[in-house]
Amino acid sequence: MTAMRKTNWGALTTALLLGFSAPGVSAAPKYIFYFIGDGMASAQIHAAEAYLGARRQDDAEPGGIKSVALRMSQFPVQGMQTSAANDRLITDSAAAGTALACGHKTNTGILAMDPTATRPYTTLAELAKDKGMKVGIVTSVSLDHATPAAFYAHVAHRNDYQRIGQALLESGFDYFAGGGLRVDRWDGLEYAGLSDAQRYALLREQASARGFQYAADRAAFTALARGRPTLAINPYLDDANAIPYALNRQAGESSSERYQGSISLAEFTAKGIELLDNPQGFFLVVEGGKIDWAAHANDARTVIEEVIAFDDAIRIAADFGTRHPEATLIVVTGDHECGGMSLGTRATAHTSALEILARQHLAHDDFDDQVLTPYLARHTPAPPDIPPGLWALVSSHFGLDGAGLTTTTADDLSDHARSLLEAAYDKVAHDHSDGSAEADALRYGNHNPFIITLTHLLNRRAGIGWASFSHTAVPVPVLATGVEAWRFDGYYDNTEVARRLAAAMRVELGP
Amino acid sequence: MTAMRKTNWGALTTALLLGFSAPGVSAAPKYIFYFIGDGMASAQIHAAEAYLGARRQDDAEPGGIKSVALRMSQFPVQGMQTSAANDRLITDSAAAGTALACGHKTNTGILAMDPTATRPYTTLAELAKDKGMKVGIVTSVSLDHATPAAFYAHVAHRNDYQRIGQALLESGFDYFAGGGLRVDRWDGLEYAGLSDAQRYALLREQASARGFQYAADRAAFTALARGRPTLAINPYLDDANAIPYALNRQAGESSSERYQGSISLAEFTAKGIELLDNPQGFFLVVEGGKIDWAAHANDARTVIEEVIAFDDAIRIAADFGTRHPEATLIVVTGDHECGGMSLGTRATAHTSALEILARQHLAHDDFDDQVLTPYLARHTPAPPDIPPGLWALVSSHFGLDGAGLTTTTADDLSDHARSLLEAAYDKVAHDHSDGSAEADALRYGNHNPFIITLTHLLNRRAGIGWASFSHTAVPVPVLATGVEAWRFDGYYDNTEVARRLAAAMRVELGP
Repeated sequence: MTAMRKTNWGALTTALLLGFSAPGVSAAPKYIFYFIGDGMASAQIHAAEAYLGARRQDDAEPGGIKSVALRMSQFPVQGMQTSAANDRLITDSAAAGTALACGHKTNTGILAMDPTATRPYTTLAELAKDKGMKVGIVTSVSLDHATPAAFYAHVAHRNDYQRIGQALLESGFDYFAGGGLRVDRWDGLEYAGLSDAQRYALLREQASARGFQYAADRAAFTALARGRPTLAINPYLDDANAIPYALNRQAGESSSERYQGSISLAEFTAKGIELLDNPQGFFLVVEGGKIDWAAHANDARTVIEEVIAFDDAIRIAADFGTRHPEATLIVVTGDHECGGMSLGTRATAHTSALEILARQHLAHDDFDDQVLTPYLARHTPAPPDIPPGLWALVSSHFGLDGAGLTTTTADDLSDHARSLLEAAYDKVAHDHSDGSAEADALRYGNHNPFIITLTHLLNRRAGIGWASFSHTAVPVPVLATGVEAWRFDGYYDNTEVARRLAAAMRVELGP
Repeated sequence: MTAMRKTNWGALTTALLLGFSAPGVSAAPKYIFYFIGDGMASAQIHAAEAYLGARRQDDAEPGGIKSVALRMSQFPVQGMQTSAANDRLITDSAAAGTALACGHKTNTGILAMDPTATRPYTTLAELAKDKGMKVGIVTSVSLDHATPAAFYAHVAHRNDYQRIGQALLESGFDYFAGGGLRVDRWDGLEYAGLSDAQRYALLREQASARGFQYAADRAAFTALARGRPTLAINPYLDDANAIPYALNRQAGESSSERYQGSISLAEFTAKGIELLDNPQGFFLVVEGGKIDWAAHANDARTVIEEVIAFDDAIRIAADFGTRHPEATLIVVTGDHECGGMSLGTRATAHTSALEILARQHLAHDDFDDQVLTPYLARHTPAPPDIPPGLWALVSSHFGLDGAGLTTTTADDLSDHARSLLEAAYDKVAHDHSDGSAEADALRYGNHNPFIITLTHLLNRRAGIGWASFSHTAVPVPVLATGVEAWRFDGYYDNTEVARRLAAAMRVELGP
């Protein structure tokens, strides 16, 4: 979006501050952290703060609503950015990632190239590398997903995963860590007929040939040492080769083998600092990629836990910044809002009960895989109405009981809630709906009707609303601290985030 | 909300900037503008920008989404505030107004007093007056409404309009302008049996006795002169003694007598500057009060026009600031978000067509009063289905036709849209609903079912979603420009807005 902004007399203030502060901090920051919360805007951030506050309410002095400020929220500089793509008001992560990485607009689907997909844009990470800094890319989703890929791959289609994977290996960057790669989407003939495990083995070989050290379990991760480029992948990979949701990991760490040894976004970040630290400094991108996925699923509890996990990674950087205050810049933003999330709903009007979100013990995906689907498989043919056994699971995993919703507020929606859940069950168990296809699409999107109804009901009782299953164009905050953080004040377009960061780094983004 | 924020190393930057910039601007700003958009947060602001951009799209170069930055959006300093009341995460305008006016939390419903409603809080406007500045209060709603009243009245109940009216007259402030007063809610025995016109005549007498000049038509407004306190009320007062919606005024100015001579928020602001300007400076509060009302009604077109009208008033102040750059501070914020507004909906996913909002020619209230209610009164008994004549009105006032929605996008919701409108008509015309009372409450709130369905359908096709009919706790931006605007950077609680303004003014808010 080319915002038609004029300069104004108030810019005098900024110029004044620039003029005064520049002499004291004339060197570019040596350690740069660029945190991107995919799908994270103000509502997602404050939902986490208000939820943490609501859970602590009992301990606090009476009579005052409390929130707990996240680490990022304590940063002294606050900006706001608009996220439109070149071709759509509501962006995707490819165009948004390109804007944040390159300072240029492009069309949705394109990575680090112009809207005609013919001319590559230079990325901040590449410029940092050229400058002699070490470069790291950390994400909770796959390393070839649009947001991280926008920093190292120049491709016309964000789904061209094989090419993106090659670009990763050829980037010359120093640290890639988090989720895996979409090797399942590599479509070269040489991969035909190979299992994912075989493809990962080939990836490992290719990485080794290029000098990478490779870690795919906690022992190897712990043993990673400086001096070689690094590819570190979480031991267990979830859907689309992402690391598991923090909520599922918390729930399953003791009981489920798959989450044992899991590495958090904060740990991947800390390891990045350890490996990248050097006299020329570093440029470290960290994406909280599954905030977006949970928001697509309108799953507020999971959004909140992902925001907190993202903030835990920010805390690692902020602690590092405390030790290097004269040399560190931390910028936190989102690429776009997702879900049209709101702290307030039609059903609850001006009341909230965020603490009841704690009743949800699994994210939507694990509830499906681990609970609902196995239950339905064990109970065929499905009974006409929700059977008591399923109500029991709903109760234990979402705190909703057979009589409707166990709420802390007076106005009970139980009859309506029950009818919505029964309708969703009917759709899932018998593929039957009383509503039109249009009505079903508005209710359920492309999600499991029973689970999306459960999260909607729980969210609604808590006071969390959702207007969409998709991204939105609601503006996104920018939070910054450290050397030249002042550059990020104001309200601007997302390309400006990259441009201001380039100015702080004393590098030139291309035209 | 007592945010548990710790100081942090990044604050160093702020302190640095403070230290450097303070010597150059050591005097407090002489001209202070405090703009409060009731119910206005980022989504409301950016909806206006994106709508203006979408309407200009045809003129712009091809291939690029455009938005048009509002004047406020060009301010160099951006903060973000959380709006919780002492007793609720989701505030009302009384508690929020108190926080913004006094720097203290209180419970919902209370104005400028502590949560027990026993101890008054000092307001920034009172401190400005004590300092010798002139003080003005401008609003598009009634002058005794919660937000403006929080600056001059200390009452336990925001609906105690008689007392608030007395406080207004006794405030010693210099300029009150915009809507009227809720004389209809004055419950003293002396007013029993009197018409509103008679009550206004008494108000005018009381005001005159206290030295006020009084204007209630454009000629008197134009003739207002400096030197006396002023009470200026729009010639035509709408529901609850507010000035009319900008959209209705635009539509009706030539055709409807009631809007002739109407005075805009920008004109009331300009007059305030003219009357208040003096060597000791002034403190002028301007509220865009009906952004909130339109958002409660989920009426996006009307929200957008109210935001633009509010921004037009800000433009007046910004132009003044351009002429007095060394002496002016302008702070713009909202008191809370309203409606859980989103730039994206379930139905439209990642597409938008904001330009179709231009098809709506009247705000929800005038469509009801001027179109729907008269039509239904003329057609009794009401036909079972929406009659062609009503479809014609829907088409001419909302751009929706009998076959459903005239859309610019491919995925047509016409069948579903039509069924929703027919159900809403059934409810309005025959007080009949197929849904439960709960389902109806979720759909319609306390609004006219037919009109809320129309606005929801039009908004949805445009790509605007709503999660609530009420306020929400979504954080609210703070935009600032001018002398000491830098104080408003960062993410903080709403009480901080007042505290930072007090610091800029060199006044002390009470404990």
